[in-house]
Amino acid sequence: MRKAVSIVSGGIDSSTLIYDLANKHVDVYGLTFVYGQKHSKEIQAAEKISSKLGIEHKVVDISSIKELLDSSALINPTVPIPNVPETAEHYDALKATIVPNRNSIFLSLAVAYAVKIGADGVFYGAHFSDRGVYPDCRREFVDAFMHAERVATDNFELIVEAPFVNMNKSDIVRLGSALKVPYHLTWSCYRGEAKHCGTCSSCRERKRAFLEAEVKDPTEYKR
Amino acid sequence: MRKAVSIVSGGIDSSTLIYDLANKHVDVYGLTFVYGQKHSKEIQAAEKISSKLGIEHKVVDISSIKELLDSSALINPTVPIPNVPETAEHYDALKATIVPNRNSIFLSLAVAYAVKIGADGVFYGAHFSDRGVYPDCRREFVDAFMHAERVATDNFELIVEAPFVNMNKSDIVRLGSALKVPYHLTWSCYRGEAKHCGTCSSCRERKRAFLEAEVKDPTEYKR
Repeated sequence: MRKAVSIVSGGIDSSTLIYDLANKHVDVYGLTFVYGQKHSKEIQAAEKISSKLGIEHKVVDISSIKELLDSSALINPTVPIPNVPETAEHYDALKATIVPNRNSIFLSLAVAYAVKIGADGVFYGAHFSDRGVYPDCRREFVDAFMHAERVATDNFELIVEAPFVNMNKSDIVRLGSALKVPYHLTWSCYRGEAKHCGTCSSCRERKRAFLEAEVKDPTEYKR
Repeated sequence: MRKAVSIVSGGIDSSTLIYDLANKHVDVYGLTFVYGQKHSKEIQAAEKISSKLGIEHKVVDISSIKELLDSSALINPTVPIPNVPETAEHYDALKATIVPNRNSIFLSLAVAYAVKIGADGVFYGAHFSDRGVYPDCRREFVDAFMHAERVATDNFELIVEAPFVNMNKSDIVRLGSALKVPYHLTWSCYRGEAKHCGTCSSCRERKRAFLEAEVKDPTEYKR
């Protein structure tokens, strides 16, 4: 792998991913999509991280697709971000945060961009705990999608990969800590307030990952 | 199949497709993308056809993705639309009209929309003569992509289909003629002038299809 496109969300997983790729001497092209998210905190974070790492980074505004997307809590102002208790994984509550087919949409665009710049890989930061709620974060999807894209572009050397798909978030934090990922610049919270809320599912997961990894959490949480 | 999303380009194939689906009592939701095409003739045609058929139709402007797409002659003002001689299929010249991964991008968005409206099918109008130049118009792609999307949405009843993928354009015109598709409202020309140019690959193919189908061609060509 010489050159790759990586989807960058501004969160822990994709930030660790681009640091890991760069550490492996891959020429990384970051790609962030504005698709109608309720807030722009994660987009700003994606820009900061990419600039810190010194990679080429594009933000593409496709928020006009919002009208095609089901009313996810991440987009629809009338659907609240669910609060999640500290213990247990509340799949039913988390379902509100699904944006149907999001990774398929993002990866299709990333593959088109890879063709344009002559990259041989496309990466995204799905990880193991995503698998329960988000079908497009599962190994089966990554493999099926890579096959479809190889056929679509007539390039059977194209790699589509989510290298963390079988890793827990705490393993990712441990890896990123070794790679000196500037986690204080990353954003996880589904609410876009001044600080991380500390009570949405994404904040809960972030807290737990640092705890389990035994890495100091640089995040200021509201609660 | 009760309800389906169909990509509508304003050309012969997708117009015949939505007439065929409607004739089979499918509730059709048409979807047209503005992705940076040089002209808007085909978008206007898609609107006219959909309105004539009386189906729900959406035009979604994703032209911001242009910067991710390779410099196809259909988008880049500095790349001319190739003229194609009357005889033979000039694949090399046609390669300039490839928009890499276009169908994967469009179909990913169509699948998201299908989830939103509770449709169980997603259709597009790829046909047999497309197969040489456009890998995302081949049976292998349709099958691979349907599998990936079933995994992505965790819905193994989802149908992704290009029913004309093994049909010639003349067969499509013959079918459409029986279905009374208003072909005078469709647009094929890659150049967006007042009349169909008659010399681009798409005009050549259109002319030939009507001739071979022995259906009167309602198109006014410049040459």
